[in-house]
Amino acid sequence: MRRFLFAAAIFSLALPCFAGDFQTAAALCDRALGDPTAWHLLESLTAGIGPRPVGTPAAAHARDWAVARLKALGFANVRVEPFAKPSWHRGAESAELVKPYPLRLAVIGLGNSVPTPPQGIEAPVVVLRSYAELLAARPGAFKGKIVVVNQPMTRTEDGSGYGAAVVTRNGDGEAAKRGAVAYLIRSVSTGNGRAPHTGAIWGHTPVIPTAALGVPDADLLQYLAARGPVRLSLKLANWVDAKSQAWNVSGDIRGSERPDEIVVIGGHLDSWDPGTGAIDDAAGVTITVAAANLIGKLPRHPRRTIRVVLFGSEESGGSSDAYLAVHKQELGKIVLAGESDLGSDRAYAVHLPEGAVAAPALAMLPAVLAPLRVLVSDQPAQHAGSDVSGLEKAGVPVLAVDQDASRYFDYHHSADDTLAVVDRAQLNQNVATWAGLLYLVADSKLDFRAKPVKH
Amino acid sequence: MRRFLFAAAIFSLALPCFAGDFQTAAALCDRALGDPTAWHLLESLTAGIGPRPVGTPAAAHARDWAVARLKALGFANVRVEPFAKPSWHRGAESAELVKPYPLRLAVIGLGNSVPTPPQGIEAPVVVLRSYAELLAARPGAFKGKIVVVNQPMTRTEDGSGYGAAVVTRNGDGEAAKRGAVAYLIRSVSTGNGRAPHTGAIWGHTPVIPTAALGVPDADLLQYLAARGPVRLSLKLANWVDAKSQAWNVSGDIRGSERPDEIVVIGGHLDSWDPGTGAIDDAAGVTITVAAANLIGKLPRHPRRTIRVVLFGSEESGGSSDAYLAVHKQELGKIVLAGESDLGSDRAYAVHLPEGAVAAPALAMLPAVLAPLRVLVSDQPAQHAGSDVSGLEKAGVPVLAVDQDASRYFDYHHSADDTLAVVDRAQLNQNVATWAGLLYLVADSKLDFRAKPVKH
Repeated sequence: MRRFLFAAAIFSLALPCFAGDFQTAAALCDRALGDPTAWHLLESLTAGIGPRPVGTPAAAHARDWAVARLKALGFANVRVEPFAKPSWHRGAESAELVKPYPLRLAVIGLGNSVPTPPQGIEAPVVVLRSYAELLAARPGAFKGKIVVVNQPMTRTEDGSGYGAAVVTRNGDGEAAKRGAVAYLIRSVSTGNGRAPHTGAIWGHTPVIPTAALGVPDADLLQYLAARGPVRLSLKLANWVDAKSQAWNVSGDIRGSERPDEIVVIGGHLDSWDPGTGAIDDAAGVTITVAAANLIGKLPRHPRRTIRVVLFGSEESGGSSDAYLAVHKQELGKIVLAGESDLGSDRAYAVHLPEGAVAAPALAMLPAVLAPLRVLVSDQPAQHAGSDVSGLEKAGVPVLAVDQDASRYFDYHHSADDTLAVVDRAQLNQNVATWAGLLYLVADSKLDFRAKPVKH
Repeated sequence: MRRFLFAAAIFSLALPCFAGDFQTAAALCDRALGDPTAWHLLESLTAGIGPRPVGTPAAAHARDWAVARLKALGFANVRVEPFAKPSWHRGAESAELVKPYPLRLAVIGLGNSVPTPPQGIEAPVVVLRSYAELLAARPGAFKGKIVVVNQPMTRTEDGSGYGAAVVTRNGDGEAAKRGAVAYLIRSVSTGNGRAPHTGAIWGHTPVIPTAALGVPDADLLQYLAARGPVRLSLKLANWVDAKSQAWNVSGDIRGSERPDEIVVIGGHLDSWDPGTGAIDDAAGVTITVAAANLIGKLPRHPRRTIRVVLFGSEESGGSSDAYLAVHKQELGKIVLAGESDLGSDRAYAVHLPEGAVAAPALAMLPAVLAPLRVLVSDQPAQHAGSDVSGLEKAGVPVLAVDQDASRYFDYHHSADDTLAVVDRAQLNQNVATWAGLLYLVADSKLDFRAKPVKH
């Protein structure tokens, strides 16, 4: 915390070569570090409502919570935009080691998996140590078997280990092609806790029952399978509600000069079910609401409107397309979009659209963010978040805030994703980063669609 | 360490779908984790020889050390390639706070800086909080002043905070244009220790005396300057030896089938002077020598030759161009190049040339590196290291190993860069990563210059 107090002290001084905007933005960051809003919102959304999968009563509670909180904070134009979203529902789940000795394993079904028959599936197990091994196997190689892929995930600050590991989650079709009757993966996790990590199967129609084992359980099976026959019994009871709904909720901090030009930011209200969705993504919801709220309390709003969108179906997809569909006619007015969806640990870099990285209008941004130890990257923003990917593909420029993801995948999509893993000082450092950044981009007249002039 | 023991255990088993190469590479990684070679070399190069700036007797000791060690380990074709390299030599240095109270500050001159007059420079101080502020100031704004830029550096795992912060090191010309008589920077460091961090000024002829303050001293000046007049006295005595020499030293592990095709890897023997250059870059030297040495001890060498080049002048430039100049005629035979120059903390990702990322010949690489928790990135390698940048620009394909740089810039170029900050388990995890990677690329017949086929 010493660092943050120090930051507060120097914010009270003017830089000799910057003025006006710099002082407002720096004071905003300073206030954010001490503001309790994000933490209080985070408590009420997670402990107060609990897990929020699409199609559950809690998802509707979260919608009502969002409307009430945005209104209470003074956001304008608070809207609920419903959309149809079939939902997958977890039932009873179990995995039991049958051979070489009986043991109950930690297991969780993957979203969109097909269920097992009610009596379950019992079969011999084959354990592969990498997804590449599955792809290298010949058709029929695993006939009648339960295939386990025990590929570990690399811990990295930028979360890049996730992409390399999460491919395993979609391997049910590849396993089925090779004769497998069920498909299990090592949880996509950097941790070593027993709690398994769920997540959705996407991009194809699931084929065979698919679930994630706790990390230690996957290692155990590998140990046993290298020494003799292993048999498992797997039961997954789950069902789909084809008629459920989800909602995107939004509220605006109205621009003072160009209110029809909109900066869209947000996080997602929905969550997986084993934890309470604190880092994924109550954190993103509360960071962006708290940052916009502080800007809304300024005596003069920035020139452009800031819209916080709380997306309703990120985990199994849908809210990005839904938002795009409703706002297709006004895309030209969305000047910039971004999302906070990588937890609550410290921000360390921001990325701007290509045309803005070296723009003189944002020359003071490094000085605003430096006391927070956040750098302004010379790499343009890309892939600003799943919920704004629709806008991004439709040509809306994006910004991104890199957060320390070193711990994130220890908890993500597991029972451990609760308020207990959130560090309040780091949460507020994120609010400060978003507040300073948002204020400057929303108050600028920059055309973020313009490409930089080459010299 | 538990992780490494576990890795060793599973290496003893064959994967069902890969064979031959996989087992050799996996066993090599396993041996590397327990091999004492890198640690012993690191001790003798740092504690045994000390700091190794170009133009000092220690640089020649390091050359002789390299020749003797490479020969003793059985490397073939051990060569010394001398080149002319003018050298900058540090003399007595001091910075004293004169006003508001007397205090000796921690300071270190930057490489290539001009000296002060023998009596020093005493002048009022202006403190800027970012480099952007210096660039935004009008000509003459700092007439007769000592300019201090106190821009902090962001701690990141990938070291990307360095690029944003190190620009300050070259600001003497910008400060001089605005009237400054001397230029001081906050050490380019993520730490909070008092020891200042040096480094070279590059890309222009230095104009005014330039040095780095310890991080706490720069913060102190900022505090004081915001409250009243501050005066400093600065003395830098340094000189240039225009006639000095440096040397690149190399040795080969001769290929068994295509000995004329060469994979060039290495680190740099030279170092800055305040510490003993353990992480920068005795680590890179010893990691690559130890990895190649293990491969050289295999009953069958890989098809291609592995050449370890120990570069002689990275810190103030020169060894990359020198290597390129000597080997210009054989560039077509250098199939791949890479360098280890980011300390000794754990490797977490490897990057291959674009044409090799998805090549079936390297399909087992993820499984080889997974027990080390190193991922194979889908991003092609770029900027593989300063000493191979000449080869890279000349069209030689490169590979890169990403290391955890979170701690690296706490010590880099300072008195704290010693053996004491090296973690031996992480050092060996790097040797294992390089050994597995090198074996597979050197034994492959892949043309790394080929671009991937687009489907």
